[in-house]
Amino acid sequence: MIEDLWLVGIGTGSPGHVTLDGMQALRDAAVILLPWKGAAKDDLLALRRSILAAAGTRAEIRCFDYPERDPALPYQTRVADWHDEIARRWSAALDGAPEGPVALLVWGDPALYDSTLRIAERLRPRPALRVIPGITAIQALTAAHAIPLNRVDGPVKITTGRRLREHGWPAGEESVVVMLDGACSFTALDPHELHIWWGAYLGSPSQILRAGKLADVAGDIVTTRAEARARHGWIMDTYLLRR
Amino acid sequence: MIEDLWLVGIGTGSPGHVTLDGMQALRDAAVILLPWKGAAKDDLLALRRSILAAAGTRAEIRCFDYPERDPALPYQTRVADWHDEIARRWSAALDGAPEGPVALLVWGDPALYDSTLRIAERLRPRPALRVIPGITAIQALTAAHAIPLNRVDGPVKITTGRRLREHGWPAGEESVVVMLDGACSFTALDPHELHIWWGAYLGSPSQILRAGKLADVAGDIVTTRAEARARHGWIMDTYLLRR
Repeated sequence: MIEDLWLVGIGTGSPGHVTLDGMQALRDAAVILLPWKGAAKDDLLALRRSILAAAGTRAEIRCFDYPERDPALPYQTRVADWHDEIARRWSAALDGAPEGPVALLVWGDPALYDSTLRIAERLRPRPALRVIPGITAIQALTAAHAIPLNRVDGPVKITTGRRLREHGWPAGEESVVVMLDGACSFTALDPHELHIWWGAYLGSPSQILRAGKLADVAGDIVTTRAEARARHGWIMDTYLLRR
Repeated sequence: MIEDLWLVGIGTGSPGHVTLDGMQALRDAAVILLPWKGAAKDDLLALRRSILAAAGTRAEIRCFDYPERDPALPYQTRVADWHDEIARRWSAALDGAPEGPVALLVWGDPALYDSTLRIAERLRPRPALRVIPGITAIQALTAAHAIPLNRVDGPVKITTGRRLREHGWPAGEESVVVMLDGACSFTALDPHELHIWWGAYLGSPSQILRAGKLADVAGDIVTTRAEARARHGWIMDTYLLRR
């Protein structure tokens, strides 16, 4: 049973992204629940452990395995089932753990394209939730390129690779951020009116950046991304498109 | 002449929002340029000073006054003229300052509805820019309410109060964040299909939160906002609307 659950946003790949509030929460937690995402993502676990070392936490560390998603199910059902199973695994991993606040280290910010809040809602009894915001990939991207996200008074649309593929350029938008894109969905757009700022492994020593007219740099990004993904065994990337 | 200009995002009202990278940059800067926004916003200057004290910086502090914007000009011209004048005031304030990196503390994140990057572009010669991302009001809002910003795989639109007033609900959107809204522009929307999560002074001890069906809570937010603004002499607030 979890009485207090703290979701700590840790940013996107640099221990320096963690906020003072985040570090304090990691020190104050009684238990820290760490995901084990398989050997290919060992470096993500290593980053989490380096953050915990920097915080100087004395919390008990408990690990849980992520289940596989069932590709035969429709997308929303598949995600819902997966969240149910993760909630069960959290509870199992905490069996016999010390009393006190349980903290989870959440990549980026717990509010943005992250499931942790939705998984937490499945716990019974419902824990008291505390969310500590973290730097998102969007912020790491604009910081690395030293660019504003919006034009003066301009709107910004945040969307996913899946939506960009299915619906094309969002009508009427000028600045579009694309996340969760495993398929370089920008290649489906008319490249002559768009500028792209792309980044992978943002904030980490492996950070890669590309920027330019989409017509000029799309091919290079596709190749660079494939090579980097093969080399690391995983990739996380995001990009901003502007008309 | 500024060779290195560092824009440090400081979050929205809590020294605990500053990242480890942000604190380190404030320690490493030679000069820190602080805005003086008038007596009504003394508490914002006090927050900046408390962050500098926590960082233990030994940088020389220089202050500059913000100019007034000319309300007779069209919006985009007014903003451009204002940015020109601020760039001149930065340079004047740095006259005779020690050599080395100049840091500016930027509310929220330098990429989002902040002018600092655009003002920096006006400096000649152009300084080398370094951006350290900070927690935005959007993240402070979702963290305080412990809610996700997006639905599963769902898009998010970020817009301004001005745009919401002029264009109404953005077509096809499900999650809309409104910033820079001095006029409670949500009152112009049909309140029966929308849920609102509102917050002011986010992250600070004065934080105020309201959430509910827009039809139920809009009036309370308008009153609460007016009272708080009168009491503090200023207000910063933001909100998420969801269909």
